[in-house]
Amino acid sequence: MNSKPIGVFDSGIGGLTVVHALTQRLPHENIVYFGDTARVPYGPKSPQVVREYAAQDVDFLISKDVKMVVIACNTVSAVALDVVQKHAKMPVIGVIVPGAMAAVKATTKKRVGIIGTRATVNSNAYTNAVRQLDGEVQVFAQECPLFVPLAEEGWVDHKVTDAVATEYLFPFKQEKIDTLILGCTHYPILRRAISAALDRAVALIDSGEATGVEVERVLDEKGLRNPSKQRPNLQFYVSDIPAKFAEIGERFLGQRMGRVQKAEGF
Amino acid sequence: MNSKPIGVFDSGIGGLTVVHALTQRLPHENIVYFGDTARVPYGPKSPQVVREYAAQDVDFLISKDVKMVVIACNTVSAVALDVVQKHAKMPVIGVIVPGAMAAVKATTKKRVGIIGTRATVNSNAYTNAVRQLDGEVQVFAQECPLFVPLAEEGWVDHKVTDAVATEYLFPFKQEKIDTLILGCTHYPILRRAISAALDRAVALIDSGEATGVEVERVLDEKGLRNPSKQRPNLQFYVSDIPAKFAEIGERFLGQRMGRVQKAEGF
Repeated sequence: MNSKPIGVFDSGIGGLTVVHALTQRLPHENIVYFGDTARVPYGPKSPQVVREYAAQDVDFLISKDVKMVVIACNTVSAVALDVVQKHAKMPVIGVIVPGAMAAVKATTKKRVGIIGTRATVNSNAYTNAVRQLDGEVQVFAQECPLFVPLAEEGWVDHKVTDAVATEYLFPFKQEKIDTLILGCTHYPILRRAISAALDRAVALIDSGEATGVEVERVLDEKGLRNPSKQRPNLQFYVSDIPAKFAEIGERFLGQRMGRVQKAEGF
Repeated sequence: MNSKPIGVFDSGIGGLTVVHALTQRLPHENIVYFGDTARVPYGPKSPQVVREYAAQDVDFLISKDVKMVVIACNTVSAVALDVVQKHAKMPVIGVIVPGAMAAVKATTKKRVGIIGTRATVNSNAYTNAVRQLDGEVQVFAQECPLFVPLAEEGWVDHKVTDAVATEYLFPFKQEKIDTLILGCTHYPILRRAISAALDRAVALIDSGEATGVEVERVLDEKGLRNPSKQRPNLQFYVSDIPAKFAEIGERFLGQRMGRVQKAEGF
């Protein structure tokens, strides 16, 4: 039993969809969230730079005395999981392996698609994780750089977003996938448009939800659950506070956020 | 006469359109370019963070012994011109005032539109500059956050870009502007789509081109022109080198770039 908070970090605002998944599954856990809004997005950056920033991000969470670290950012999970593990000296969970596990479980025809940022797709992290779990699964990947700005613009039900989704996802129709991993925390916001651009039977895997399952398993395995049944304390820190963080954040989190604090040192 | 290079900086790749304008107008000037590709984009960041980054960017150019500084980034020109001037102790030219001057000269009905990032539009820098030059001009501003990712995705002739332009620029039809300032260095890449979404007679002002005119004037005024008639030396530095910088850069620059170097200290 341990009442310390779970630390969650992301390159920006998208990781709030992972916080949402955690609060649904683990409603009594305290959470400290850090979003590196000064340096978002990580997706187009080089692995070297992402690794450097990830080390700084996890150091911030450690300074907040967290009991475990969740890397909500797919890009960081893909290229810097080892860096975070080395810094943290406590349980660390990225979103890649839980997402891959859920996809392998869901696919019946063993044909899985993955969408993500350029960095995530180029890293082949999901492809490797899926194929390590089941070498018979065929994996098809597609980078979708416009999905993040569309989600941040709030064009969720919009013909432009539908047209972009149709263009990006068209290859998956030909490849006849039956499961698609949403390999970026922004993408669950666009679930409707993504689904509409695919064959009807394709299962969508939200890596954030899958990560919630894994976090619960690790908390139980290590005896780290919060014994309190009180309403938990959710704290939000960002490296920069543009006006739109508050405006957009609640759409991602699915609830009111309260005060957002500026993290020092960024 | 002075053969030292002109220093140009931007948040990323977009400033290469300004370098293009400079090489057209001043074909014998040496240029050192710095793009802060590790921390791009500046548009959604707070003024405080943009000012901090701008100071670091100009310090890098000073370390390269430049004779003048051109702020190719509209966001920096809008919110941090004073910071750069304070650091540089040499002539500094931002893109806002030259763009505003060109617009005031072009408008016949005294109705000017401005498009830019959220930070540029929220700063009111163009509006203030235009109205300081001519208090009778009415100014209408519109932020266009999706234009930068569309330009970087290379969707220049694409129905999605046309649809986005139509949606963003529709208010300008009602406001009957006759001149539009392209208040972001990425936007000249999308000139065709932007023009198609406006009434035919609307004049487009490329702030980069207008800045070239002003740079030439200042070089002459201060006696800083390069006496050499040789082919100039163009040097490109970035704070991060994602693969796509080289891929996209030449489209913005309009010529081959040669080697791109990693700037230390970012």
